[in-house]
Amino acid sequence: MRKFLLVISFFAGTLWAGNTQEEVVSSIFSNALNSHVAYENLRVLCETAGERISGSPAAAAAVEFTRQIMDNMNLDSVYLQEMTVPNWKRGEPETARILSSRFGNRDINIIALGLSVGTGEQGITAGVIEVGGLDELEKIGSEAIEGKIIFFNRPVDQSHYNTFEAYSGAVDQRFRGPALAADYGAAAAVVRSVTTANHDHPHTGVTRFREDGRNIPALAISPVGADLLSKWLKADPGLKLFLRNTSHRLPDVTSFNVIGEIRGSEYPDQIITVGGHLDSWDNSPGAHDDGAGCMQSIDVLRIFNELGIRPKRTVRAVMFMDEEISQSGGRKYAAEAGRKNEQHYFAIESDRGAFTPRGFSIDGSDEQLAAIQSLGHFFEPYGIHEIFSGGSGVDISFLRTYYDMALAGLVTDSQRYFDIHHAATDTFDQVNRREMQLGSAAMAALIYLLDHLDILEQ
Amino acid sequence: MRKFLLVISFFAGTLWAGNTQEEVVSSIFSNALNSHVAYENLRVLCETAGERISGSPAAAAAVEFTRQIMDNMNLDSVYLQEMTVPNWKRGEPETARILSSRFGNRDINIIALGLSVGTGEQGITAGVIEVGGLDELEKIGSEAIEGKIIFFNRPVDQSHYNTFEAYSGAVDQRFRGPALAADYGAAAAVVRSVTTANHDHPHTGVTRFREDGRNIPALAISPVGADLLSKWLKADPGLKLFLRNTSHRLPDVTSFNVIGEIRGSEYPDQIITVGGHLDSWDNSPGAHDDGAGCMQSIDVLRIFNELGIRPKRTVRAVMFMDEEISQSGGRKYAAEAGRKNEQHYFAIESDRGAFTPRGFSIDGSDEQLAAIQSLGHFFEPYGIHEIFSGGSGVDISFLRTYYDMALAGLVTDSQRYFDIHHAATDTFDQVNRREMQLGSAAMAALIYLLDHLDILEQ
Repeated sequence: MRKFLLVISFFAGTLWAGNTQEEVVSSIFSNALNSHVAYENLRVLCETAGERISGSPAAAAAVEFTRQIMDNMNLDSVYLQEMTVPNWKRGEPETARILSSRFGNRDINIIALGLSVGTGEQGITAGVIEVGGLDELEKIGSEAIEGKIIFFNRPVDQSHYNTFEAYSGAVDQRFRGPALAADYGAAAAVVRSVTTANHDHPHTGVTRFREDGRNIPALAISPVGADLLSKWLKADPGLKLFLRNTSHRLPDVTSFNVIGEIRGSEYPDQIITVGGHLDSWDNSPGAHDDGAGCMQSIDVLRIFNELGIRPKRTVRAVMFMDEEISQSGGRKYAAEAGRKNEQHYFAIESDRGAFTPRGFSIDGSDEQLAAIQSLGHFFEPYGIHEIFSGGSGVDISFLRTYYDMALAGLVTDSQRYFDIHHAATDTFDQVNRREMQLGSAAMAALIYLLDHLDILEQ
Repeated sequence: MRKFLLVISFFAGTLWAGNTQEEVVSSIFSNALNSHVAYENLRVLCETAGERISGSPAAAAAVEFTRQIMDNMNLDSVYLQEMTVPNWKRGEPETARILSSRFGNRDINIIALGLSVGTGEQGITAGVIEVGGLDELEKIGSEAIEGKIIFFNRPVDQSHYNTFEAYSGAVDQRFRGPALAADYGAAAAVVRSVTTANHDHPHTGVTRFREDGRNIPALAISPVGADLLSKWLKADPGLKLFLRNTSHRLPDVTSFNVIGEIRGSEYPDQIITVGGHLDSWDNSPGAHDDGAGCMQSIDVLRIFNELGIRPKRTVRAVMFMDEEISQSGGRKYAAEAGRKNEQHYFAIESDRGAFTPRGFSIDGSDEQLAAIQSLGHFFEPYGIHEIFSGGSGVDISFLRTYYDMALAGLVTDSQRYFDIHHAATDTFDQVNRREMQLGSAAMAALIYLLDHLDILEQ
């Protein structure tokens, strides 16, 4: 603690005038690693505004909590940005029961996918057809599928080092599978959870909702439940599955993005955005996804303030609402920027879990990518080696509709993320303070360097 | 699973003949990421041979368990290597109670350091002198220290990105502090746990034991307890601390290193060692430290066998006994190698926790370092970017007494390690299967490449 205060008193007000950029970056990392602020704020968010799915009272609590945090940080402005969000409700706890004449009956853990319609109060009982992918539905055909429950059971491919690739290779079953099964007349769809874990927790996530009304109940079962159902099906193809869920959609409601900013000293009209999404799913506190990203974004402002780094450009921390369901927060932020003719210089999002940062994924021109890659040597002492072309973040991605700007995603160690993603296990105790704080530091350092060096073309 | 079997059937027997080295490395990582064997073996080790401090029945169970695992792996030989190990016992649960006329009495969590002597049945009650480092004892002087409890309270410096540097900067208090305090006539020493965590668990570890008999009770308190004691001391410098522990040393006993090997096809007399240490502390199952390193080492042999990689040189997995207290296993292994005039080509140890691998720390000549660094491009696709000169592993380090060989330590993401190191929280649930398996793969790939390419000078 003594050292921490010393750093502040030594650097305050002069940090980016008299010091080398390496020294500033070093003090950013040192400050972050010594701080408990963002981590403790995340703890409170998880405890008091957990399960903050868009449209919920918990989401409103999260809006107010993060607004209060930033209100007490001596920022230049803190404000809300209003939009309409979907209001999907899970209803009563879901039930899934395998009914087998050979093995007996067995309840398995299940969770409705986001936007799923319900089964009705009485539930549905039907035979089950297991498939490994969407293309199998065409081969099986409507006649066989009519009235059945389609069971999408392709696991993620663990061979991938990067678990986002493993996830991407299986998530089509969750997002597109149920709507496609409806086309073939299925009564419902159950999906093997898209996860790297081998446990008995089901993982939710949004599924495609068709405005034409041709929707069927869509639910996820755990890897353990999926293996059991598959095994029983092989020995008893005639088994049936009873499903009951009462999920439903209520009229849309009003919610908010929460924004705090430090005004730029030279180019206040040029905006740098750092953000995460404030909503989570309704089955966990959303510690990694994405409470941590929100608290890291606020922490970037805290670091700048504590170290006396006055950015040339306006730096905004944005807590985006409703990433998980319809991305109305990201859309609203970009649309407002376009409408007001704002100038946007750079944006970065943290939405891959508060794990050790490994790099930045850049959505931009070749020149913008090269400019950011030229900063690589600043990050190597902190274990950050990977700056590459790729997607940035869902919420900030809408800015590209209006701006030819560079966007970045904070890339973190991906090994653990899909163990907890969208499951009840995405809890605060799974977050390590230092790993999370390194993410704050990585984003603060990148923003400082890009702002200070003026190297990004618009 | 289908994919996994496909890989095996395709590659078996021909893997390192017809495939590029990149393909072999890729199949090593793919095999490891798809396997649950080492992870499940670690679970059983933690459940059935936890708290396996050297000399304990649990350590004997761990010897037998790992011997049986390797006996069932179709290796060319599995054997034990006998040595004498210390047999230090913690005795009854320790007690520490702050006695303050101002604040009242308060029990705090405490744990005896390894090799600590006891306080006697009645315990010790004495005043407390807090110091920030060993050099303060000289300034305070024997007269003031005589009969007092010295409280070493310098925390780790969280500013370091690498937590091993943070640990190294504070661990002198634990290892050398109590013996030095004894020189100044202290009655006992309590040490702030050398950890990056801010929790109420004390972390143990070995302290210097002097054969001349001038030893005092030496115990660690948690960071929370240390902060409380320090705060109370400031307001009530006359407070006393009651300490009771009954730790003691029994006569040395016999124990074993456990060794399994695949005989080399071309140079069977040249040995490649891969190891971890089988003993743990007696307050946790030692999942990360170092049950995981042992299971990863065995997993290297499993990967070679499953993929049909027949090494030119003999590859040995070695479970070293007694790393934590007197390193008798590592000493014995090196001494036996020297006595038998064995040829040793390379050794690698995993003893930094089963976290995502980040690199290799090389103890060897400049030429040996350069040779290993020349392989860096094979590892970058797997997030392994750091090959540098540094310490390898405690157990294998004794080989350098006899051989001018290259040694390596598997370097893992260090952020979480000292949260759980030597504490009751070093449990199986803190291990992630994929992170652990990547460590197996990294070591297997490095051994395969060094063996296949013959690039290490002796």
